[in-house]
Amino acid sequence: MHCRVWSCIVSTGQTWTVGVTGATGYAGGEVCRLLAAHPFLSLAGVHANSSAGRRLGELQPHLLPYADLVVQPSDAASLAGYDVVVLALPHGESAAIAAQLPEDTVVIDCGADHRLTDPAAWARWYGNEHAGSWPYGLPELPGQREKLAGARRIAVPGCYPTSVTLALAPALAAGLIEPEVVVVAASGTSGAGKSAKPHLLGSEVMGSVSAYGVGGVHRHTPEMIQNLSQAAGIPVSVSFTPTLVPMSRGILATCSAKLAPGADAGSARAAYEKAYADEPFVHLLPEGQWPTTSQVLGANTVALQIAVDQAAGRLIVVAAVDNLTKGTGGAALQCANLALGLPETTGLPLVGVAP
Amino acid sequence: MHCRVWSCIVSTGQTWTVGVTGATGYAGGEVCRLLAAHPFLSLAGVHANSSAGRRLGELQPHLLPYADLVVQPSDAASLAGYDVVVLALPHGESAAIAAQLPEDTVVIDCGADHRLTDPAAWARWYGNEHAGSWPYGLPELPGQREKLAGARRIAVPGCYPTSVTLALAPALAAGLIEPEVVVVAASGTSGAGKSAKPHLLGSEVMGSVSAYGVGGVHRHTPEMIQNLSQAAGIPVSVSFTPTLVPMSRGILATCSAKLAPGADAGSARAAYEKAYADEPFVHLLPEGQWPTTSQVLGANTVALQIAVDQAAGRLIVVAAVDNLTKGTGGAALQCANLALGLPETTGLPLVGVAP
Amino acid sequence: MHCRVWSCIVSTGQTWTVGVTGATGYAGGEVCRLLAAHPFLSLAGVHANSSAGRRLGELQPHLLPYADLVVQPSDAASLAGYDVVVLALPHGESAAIAAQLPEDTVVIDCGADHRLTDPAAWARWYGNEHAGSWPYGLPELPGQREKLAGARRIAVPGCYPTSVTLALAPALAAGLIEPEVVVVAASGTSGAGKSAKPHLLGSEVMGSVSAYGVGGVHRHTPEMIQNLSQAAGIPVSVSFTPTLVPMSRGILATCSAKLAPGADAGSARAAYEKAYADEPFVHLLPEGQWPTTSQVLGANTVALQIAVDQAAGRLIVVAAVDNLTKGTGGAALQCANLALGLPETTGLPLVGVAP
Amino acid sequence: MHCRVWSCIVSTGQTWTVGVTGATGYAGGEVCRLLAAHPFLSLAGVHANSSAGRRLGELQPHLLPYADLVVQPSDAASLAGYDVVVLALPHGESAAIAAQLPEDTVVIDCGADHRLTDPAAWARWYGNEHAGSWPYGLPELPGQREKLAGARRIAVPGCYPTSVTLALAPALAAGLIEPEVVVVAASGTSGAGKSAKPHLLGSEVMGSVSAYGVGGVHRHTPEMIQNLSQAAGIPVSVSFTPTLVPMSRGILATCSAKLAPGADAGSARAAYEKAYADEPFVHLLPEGQWPTTSQVLGANTVALQIAVDQAAGRLIVVAAVDNLTKGTGGAALQCANLALGLPETTGLPLVGVAP
Repeated sequence: MHCRVWSCIVSTGQTWTVGVTGATGYAGGEVCRLLAAHPFLSLAGVHANSSAGRRLGELQPHLLPYADLVVQPSDAASLAGYDVVVLALPHGESAAIAAQLPEDTVVIDCGADHRLTDPAAWARWYGNEHAGSWPYGLPELPGQREKLAGARRIAVPGCYPTSVTLALAPALAAGLIEPEVVVVAASGTSGAGKSAKPHLLGSEVMGSVSAYGVGGVHRHTPEMIQNLSQAAGIPVSVSFTPTLVPMSRGILATCSAKLAPGADAGSARAAYEKAYADEPFVHLLPEGQWPTTSQVLGANTVALQIAVDQAAGRLIVVAAVDNLTKGTGGAALQCANLALGLPETTGLPLVGVAP
Repeated sequence: MHCRVWSCIVSTGQTWTVGVTGATGYAGGEVCRLLAAHPFLSLAGVHANSSAGRRLGELQPHLLPYADLVVQPSDAASLAGYDVVVLALPHGESAAIAAQLPEDTVVIDCGADHRLTDPAAWARWYGNEHAGSWPYGLPELPGQREKLAGARRIAVPGCYPTSVTLALAPALAAGLIEPEVVVVAASGTSGAGKSAKPHLLGSEVMGSVSAYGVGGVHRHTPEMIQNLSQAAGIPVSVSFTPTLVPMSRGILATCSAKLAPGADAGSARAAYEKAYADEPFVHLLPEGQWPTTSQVLGANTVALQIAVDQAAGRLIVVAAVDNLTKGTGGAALQCANLALGLPETTGLPLVGVAP
Repeated sequence: MHCRVWSCIVSTGQTWTVGVTGATGYAGGEVCRLLAAHPFLSLAGVHANSSAGRRLGELQPHLLPYADLVVQPSDAASLAGYDVVVLALPHGESAAIAAQLPEDTVVIDCGADHRLTDPAAWARWYGNEHAGSWPYGLPELPGQREKLAGARRIAVPGCYPTSVTLALAPALAAGLIEPEVVVVAASGTSGAGKSAKPHLLGSEVMGSVSAYGVGGVHRHTPEMIQNLSQAAGIPVSVSFTPTLVPMSRGILATCSAKLAPGADAGSARAAYEKAYADEPFVHLLPEGQWPTTSQVLGANTVALQIAVDQAAGRLIVVAAVDNLTKGTGGAALQCANLALGLPETTGLPLVGVAP
Repeated sequence: MHCRVWSCIVSTGQTWTVGVTGATGYAGGEVCRLLAAHPFLSLAGVHANSSAGRRLGELQPHLLPYADLVVQPSDAASLAGYDVVVLALPHGESAAIAAQLPEDTVVIDCGADHRLTDPAAWARWYGNEHAGSWPYGLPELPGQREKLAGARRIAVPGCYPTSVTLALAPALAAGLIEPEVVVVAASGTSGAGKSAKPHLLGSEVMGSVSAYGVGGVHRHTPEMIQNLSQAAGIPVSVSFTPTLVPMSRGILATCSAKLAPGADAGSARAAYEKAYADEPFVHLLPEGQWPTTSQVLGANTVALQIAVDQAAGRLIVVAAVDNLTKGTGGAALQCANLALGLPETTGLPLVGVAP
């Protein structure tokens, strides 16, 4: 089993300290939650832009083992000294901090700053100067795992791009679909963060589904285009519509595109089986079983299924991830494992919290 | 206001009796709920296949004013004698009953039996003989309202086809989009009915989203194709993926298609404004406001919004309906109003139960 | 049926105009929702402290028929001229407005200002001067209906006190229980209002139950004590614990007290049957059927059930109400009906929106 | 940190095999989920009454690492050979199986069969012969941890009794409250199991709270009476009302009793601080912070808070647990740890999955 491998390592007794900034938000809190079960990474400090000086327990009641930690400021000086620093900050804040941290500190950025490789794309979508790109923390992409091994700066993918990229890259890489994809994704509300906005109140979101960011304006769109175009080897257009559904966690991405000439259900399944045969976190479900977000809730896993709609001539791929785990905090630790030379699955949950 | 018009009618003192069969299910229960607020239609009897002899209050605890009604059998003999009969039965059961009811009884079928006009399509999707088609109860389609006025047999549309047809018909009719549409719809669980299946348990559906019927196999697909092809005047292909979201009621349909040459945001908005300017139940929201299912919960209304994704070259239309109200039970009473010559909005809720 | 009675009134053609202030909040929005289905009361203006000048549709997307109303200021001058004024404001704001409205305007206060009769109790719980008490809008209490007929100032009860008072008053009045009651009530989040606070975010409340205001500190406590002591004829102590549950609407109050000597299940049932035999909105369910909040969702009804725990020697009473309907907005219109001499049930929903 | 202790053990390389029967239900599934993260216990076989021969992945989609396990029969012969057997079966089925398993097999019963010590109480509540009592798996009770160390038969407590016993035992043991307690507990739906019943459908439970088993008829009542009477040293009466709330997991128990003469807030807090000072899984929150079920979701922890209601003269204690984790499956592994001589917290989650 996955955890037995620990025994070959633990004899060294080595552990690494981790500092998390943005620890009072949802992404940062998830990193802390997962650290509590990691055998070799140890949460050594929590930081945040505001809330410095408060007990973490007031702000993150579920982090009971860490309740008495006092929140420290979120600046480079305060963050120096950890083996690993996880940045879970609003976009635009990572670059300045990272530049002042030692080069051999492992810095994992859960924000958007270093995901896009094209400065022009960054400028178009974010309106300011690009901070530069870091190795992209999606080890399941061909060749990517090698780039993350030993890396000291890693950009964790966005939650939607994680689900959509893993859903569509194999088909695009194999030339099975046309490079015009349509994605409609349902997301739990934690994806919208913890700042209190009226439309995110429980009274508003329970019992209701809504669309937002319609028409290609969601900032995760260029990241999807970048990943999918790279997989396809040609430019891919992405029509992306996110929707907000009444649950806290989870993304279900329904993705489709026209089948390329000659492609069929058999070649599609073969492509996905091949792409993910050895991936510990990506599960192509048996035929006929469709993903649910509960099966990956709190886990660092992705559940995938594909089908061909003959009449419409399209391939449909559905992917489920937990936006906070494989979508953010779990991916951060998966990347940290690779950076530190630990087995990639170390300490990461493989089973969703269901029902 | 809408309800003032009653004063010009009520002077006659006329009311009509209504019998509902399938009254112990979700669709039938919704018809009963709405009848309780209808000034001229009076629920006179409840029927069901099983449960005959039981108090309605045991089976539909919310129908408090009708709790002491005893459920009667669901056969033509038992259903004779009402002015209006609403059939909320599994498909395949309506035709035999309707054939034995008097010709001047208003029979409203909430099931699928009489929606499709093409016997071959019926046979392909349902596997048995077609019962024939009835006037299609979607008055918002061009020319359809006139066909329903005074009708004695009406087929209520399916819940998904209602949302998708109203979302896309104007664009197809105006030639603004290509006839290949992609629909991903989120539905509350009541659309799956009241029979107890493990995957519909609260423990399974709360906190989880899942896909089902993927690949063009949902039986509402041919009904959408029929409606949209009629609107377009040419065959339309529909890629339809339904998803189940953690709420009881509501559908949010996200629909898109490639823009036709020359079409743009302006011509699209103009087409929708024109199509629904005089519709009492269909609301094209102000630009930038996106539909939520809570705004139509329990109401006989549809909330719509459109956007153009320039980069992807697609028109996106999002529609919200309550699958049980405008999607079934409310539509049934809207049709009954037309059949009886009452103002179309009589007794129907225009405001959703929010928050 | 309940709605037939309208025919005897509508011939006069009379309608009354209603102004609602606090119309952008949950309570005020509910009043507007219910007005849309009321045959004789007409929403003529919406007001609010902030948001003046904005379209109502931006702030209350479900109020589609009123979307184009422009929000007006919430002051006495702006509110003059309506036949009925409904105040859905934070406590402390009603008295000043009401004092400047004409004496013959029907003023219905959904806030707390005029509920308590004891100025000392007010000062102890709210810390400022008492505005005086108005007729208490719970017609189901003995003798209360008569006081509301024709009244021009009415204080709508709090949502928790409505449920708890109706649950326990009959047993206390009949001397069946000791005057020390324990109440644990579950409430949907809309009871906490629409202002955005982090602990009310959907991400926080979905999938979670929490307690708050524990230890007798909730401000609805003195109102319960007042009502129950009046029913009992002696002082009653109330241990009240509210809890927040993951739904938008609804209260389920579980109330219990020690049985008085000689009291038993039979005498208890007889007392409740007698108390509510003629009440159109209060339903004592058949033995063995327990209330659910969904059965009263959006309706102006209360579902009640009682049981005796022989081993513990206690009477348990469970009551379900919708905090926004019978708990606030529906009660407001029920009171308005009484004030105006209309049948008490006019225009009020009797059936919950279930499932 | 808690996980470092593993390093001192793992050097032996020892692991134990675990067989779980009832693995297709919610309790059994939770045991499997937790085993996936346990470093020394290894899930070696899954069993069930029905479903034998099917892939576990069809029945428990979240158990992705175990998806290909084939469900085996649930009988003693099939269950022989494991180091540890966890029984997650309906009551009445454990004794016969346990009797045929080797004496040195660790048998952990998640069912009710061996919890009650009084055969007469068993007969009164379950109607058949008592199977005998086993060491009671609540190590947090005084002296109980010692009885579980090295035990080979352990009865896991019921979920409600776990929360209520931990909530009230310290106050009763210290004589701070009268021995008449009132408990109202909110539970997620997974507590009702996985068999498909209409009232447990998502459509019924979402957006709704209901009471059930009112009047002292829930079968967890005698277990609470047993535990609390033992803690108090005198008979304790328990008025227990369970309610069903719209979430999958979690229990929030609101417990209260009259303060004994001389008891006050200070003595109460001191008693709870003392009782749980060294307990790794029980957290008395800082004053003023109230438990939420999300903070313990999926974790083997209990969050507690107390308050004194001076006016009502009562102590209120609120406890949150996850009914499937500390309430069942986590407690089972905690007991297994003790039985096997492992550190009690080994492999058990300490952080809830929030938000």
